[in-house]
This record gives sequence, structure tokens and C-alpha cells, in this order.
Amino acid sequence: MKNRSTTPVAVRRVTAGAAVDQRDLVATEEPMEIRVLTSADGERTDAVAITMRTPGHDFELAIGFLLSEGLIAGRNDVVDVSYCPDPSDMQQYNIVQVTLAPDSLFDPSLLCRNFYTTSSCGVCGKASLEALRTHGAVTVGQSPRIAGSLVRELPGRLRAAQPVFEQTGGLHAAGLFDAHGDLLTLREDVGRHNAFDKLVGHHLMAGDLPLSQHVVVVSGRASWELMQKALAAGISTLIAVGAPSSLAVELADEFGLTLVGFASSGRFNIYAGGHRIADG
Amino acid sequence: MKNRSTTPVAVRRVTAGAAVDQRDLVATEEPMEIRVLTSADGERTDAVAITMRTPGHDFELAIGFLLSEGLIAGRNDVVDVSYCPDPSDMQQYNIVQVTLAPDSLFDPSLLCRNFYTTSSCGVCGKASLEALRTHGAVTVGQSPRIAGSLVRELPGRLRAAQPVFEQTGGLHAAGLFDAHGDLLTLREDVGRHNAFDKLVGHHLMAGDLPLSQHVVVVSGRASWELMQKALAAGISTLIAVGAPSSLAVELADEFGLTLVGFASSGRFNIYAGGHRIADG
Repeated sequence: MKNRSTTPVAVRRVTAGAAVDQRDLVATEEPMEIRVLTSADGERTDAVAITMRTPGHDFELAIGFLLSEGLIAGRNDVVDVSYCPDPSDMQQYNIVQVTLAPDSLFDPSLLCRNFYTTSSCGVCGKASLEALRTHGAVTVGQSPRIAGSLVRELPGRLRAAQPVFEQTGGLHAAGLFDAHGDLLTLREDVGRHNAFDKLVGHHLMAGDLPLSQHVVVVSGRASWELMQKALAAGISTLIAVGAPSSLAVELADEFGLTLVGFASSGRFNIYAGGHRIADG
Repeated sequence: MKNRSTTPVAVRRVTAGAAVDQRDLVATEEPMEIRVLTSADGERTDAVAITMRTPGHDFELAIGFLLSEGLIAGRNDVVDVSYCPDPSDMQQYNIVQVTLAPDSLFDPSLLCRNFYTTSSCGVCGKASLEALRTHGAVTVGQSPRIAGSLVRELPGRLRAAQPVFEQTGGLHAAGLFDAHGDLLTLREDVGRHNAFDKLVGHHLMAGDLPLSQHVVVVSGRASWELMQKALAAGISTLIAVGAPSSLAVELADEFGLTLVGFASSGRFNIYAGGHRIADG
């Protein structure tokens, strides 16, 4: 398949003295529908989400999404992932179907009925947060201490590894680093939550969860939604280049996560879980 | 009511040689549920959305959201807006109830059933886009031509007027300017779509729609979702400080909107509708 993460467009670049017509690349944004196929009480397909995403790592996105929304508990729940099996569907590559194990805990009643949502639907009721508490998905505890000097280096390492951002200036990134600061995985997307889900989905399928020994660095801000996704993946430390929201701080406090904001080469702020960061 | 748009938190600020514990302000993020009360076939309340938002201008947010999702057509559909009338509800001020006129076109079947969504649910099916075409909500046509020199000034004017961003570094903004570059309305939120909805909701209630004679400037990137909201409000020109996505460009092309990206004091890029921007 061709590289679908960028799209060529015509652009008129205007500066104070000149205007030039050129070709340019922008980040691709396309809808992706996530469907779940279950066979516990007869075969049944549920459409569980549509997200606007940048094509690429679509299967990881679907898996990561299902995990962070509490619809699956781990890789054993997943039997198969494929694009829409109907080749006549124009949107075939914008539909991902996840086949779950017959004994998976998927509960269609957890889906939000009658809900439009904007930035996040994970908040529907407080179901998913309660589910996190109940499932004990949060295994944050023993985890490495990271030097402050390393924290300051990580945003630069993330940016240096962002291939599509350099072309388009339009993509959020999520990167998983080990405790030595080596980048293990990088995912990009027009939606920061999608970049995060792709990252988590990749490591879920690789059997790496929980990611409590690692550090996740995100290019943007830290919202409630990202903290919820971090919790679901057992991530102990989240470093954001941007600002945190009040609910992100609250959630980090409550669940014992480390939350760093405004991380740059010169400085950073610790909002929660400072015991995992060594000064200096 | 106290200012709920910022929340005080404890923060540890770390630089290369020092770490200082301080108080800081972060942007408040709280869930808000939007309910619609209709009386056409007997009284009925539908919960139509939960969004993570920064408190403030909540009624405008609810109204703007309903418009941009095609659930109302204009101010005549709205009879009343209030917080949850049940004072015993702990979340009273995080629930906004919109009472619609008996003859409003609100159709609960337009709500996406069984859908989780992430960045936007407007995409469910292609229902809302089709609705835009059908309703003829797009009245973009006669609209002012803006000097390129003014386009370069607008991001600075927006930023200068962002009171909460200055405190927290964590809020998106949407600003409505007239053709002379005077700022008429500014709204901020942790979610850029919410800032946009608040802006549109304000002007809908003021009877100002369509906003075809104005320019909207947004602090972040231009996604499909923002273009859809612009269309619903009849906005002819959208200027983004950040990058556009492929679908934003596509939608602008199709509907004749002007889309500017990467706007700054030195330069900007025109991705669609260049006839509304004068060079220089």
C-alpha cells in the first residue's frame, strides 16, 4: 500500500513581499470504524467507534483503543484483526474488524448508547474509570527512577524521530522510551489519543503490558483521556511537552502515576509522582 | 460562581541546577453532559453528548454543539437553556439541559447508537455532512476580501486576548474577527472543538448567524471537525495557527471555504479559497 500518512495538496505561501504557489504535504486524516466480532452467543458484530485518524498502524489503533476503553483486558481476548472482509466496500481500508475470543469479557452494554461525543467518550458515565479500579489494571508500583537530565532530553529525542511531523507539521506523537532514554516505539497521528492508542496496541500485541518500566513521551498536552489510556496500559510515567489539565493531575495523583508537563531541553514541571524523578 | 476555568495545583519546577516547589494554575477540565428536552410527542429527555471541557460559557457550548452536529437548525429551535434542574445532583453544574421548541427538527434517531468515539463523532455515517448539504446551511458566498497583511496580524491579536492561556499555557482559543481585524468574541477551552462551539453558540443566540462576513482564527490545527463546525455556522474563512489535515483541505475545497494554515506574523499558507485573501 502506498504511504497514506501524508497527502499532497496545492498551497499558496504568502509572506510580506511575495506569494508562491507550490505543492505541499499535509497529514492525512480519514475516518476509521472499529468493529468487534464476538461469538459467545451466536456471531455478532458491533460497531464500537469511529475515529478520525491518520492511516497507518490501524490494527494497533483498534487494539489499543479497545484496551484503553476497557472493552478488552489483554491480548488473549483478541483472536484476529483484519480490514473489512467485504472487498466491495469502498471504505474497506477504513474499517477494522477485531475478532474476540469466545470467553472475552467484551460487554456491548458498556458501549455508550445514544451518545454523541467530542473529545472523549471514555467518560461516559464514570464506567471506564470505575472499570479501571475494578479490573485492577493499574499495576503502577515498582518502576524505575529517572534522572531529571534525561527527562529534559526526551522531548528532543521524540521530535528527532518524528518523520511525518517534519513533512507536515501536523502530527501528534507518542513515544515509548526505556529507563535509559532509548526510544523503543514511536507512533504519529492527527489525534494525540490515536497516537497513544497505536503505541499501546503495538505493545499489547507484543505481550509487553504493563509498561510500568517505561516512560511515555507525548508531543502535546496531557488530558484526562491520555491519563486514562496510560492507566489502562500500566504506564507509570507520562511526560508531556505541553500543559496538563486539572483532571489529568487529579487522576495521576489518585492512581500514583508520575505526570510531567512542559518538558523541554531547559526545564520541566512535575505535577504528580515526583518520587520517580531524580533532581538534577 | 468562582472562576472555574483554572485550578490551582502543586508543582515541582525542575531546571538544570535547581528544583523548586510552587503553586501553579492549570486549565480546568471537567466532563459536561448535554441533554435535550423535547415535547413534540410527550416530554422526553435525551442525553446527547458528554464532552471534556473547561467550565465557562457552558450554555453557549451546548448550543454550539447542537448546531454543529446538525441537531438544531437555528436559535428558533431553542426555548430554554439551564443547568440540571435537580439541585441534589452533585454534577448539577456539569449538566446542561436544552429545551427545544415543539416544532424543532431534532431527531433522536440522528444520535449515533452504540458508538464510542474519540476525536469526533460528527463523522458517524456521513450523516452530518449529508445533513449540511441537505439543509443548505452553507451560505458561504458573498464575503469580504481580507488583506494578507491583516491575516498575519490576527494570530498575535488572538494570543494577546487569551487571558487563561497566559496563566496556564493549556488552552485552545477560537476568536471571531470582523473584516477590519477587530476581535469581536474570544472563547477558550482545553478542547479546540469546544472553544469553537462556544464561539458559535454565542453568536447563534445573538442572532448573528451565518457568520459569512467574519473571520475565525483558531490557536491550533484545522481538522475535519473544525471545518464541519465552520460550515454549520456559515463561516467563510478559517485561519489556523497550526497545520491543516487532508480532510480539512478537502472539505474547504468542496464547500468553497477559505482555509489558511500556519498563520504567523511572518507568513501563512492558503490551502483553499484564495480569492478571499488579497496578496501582500
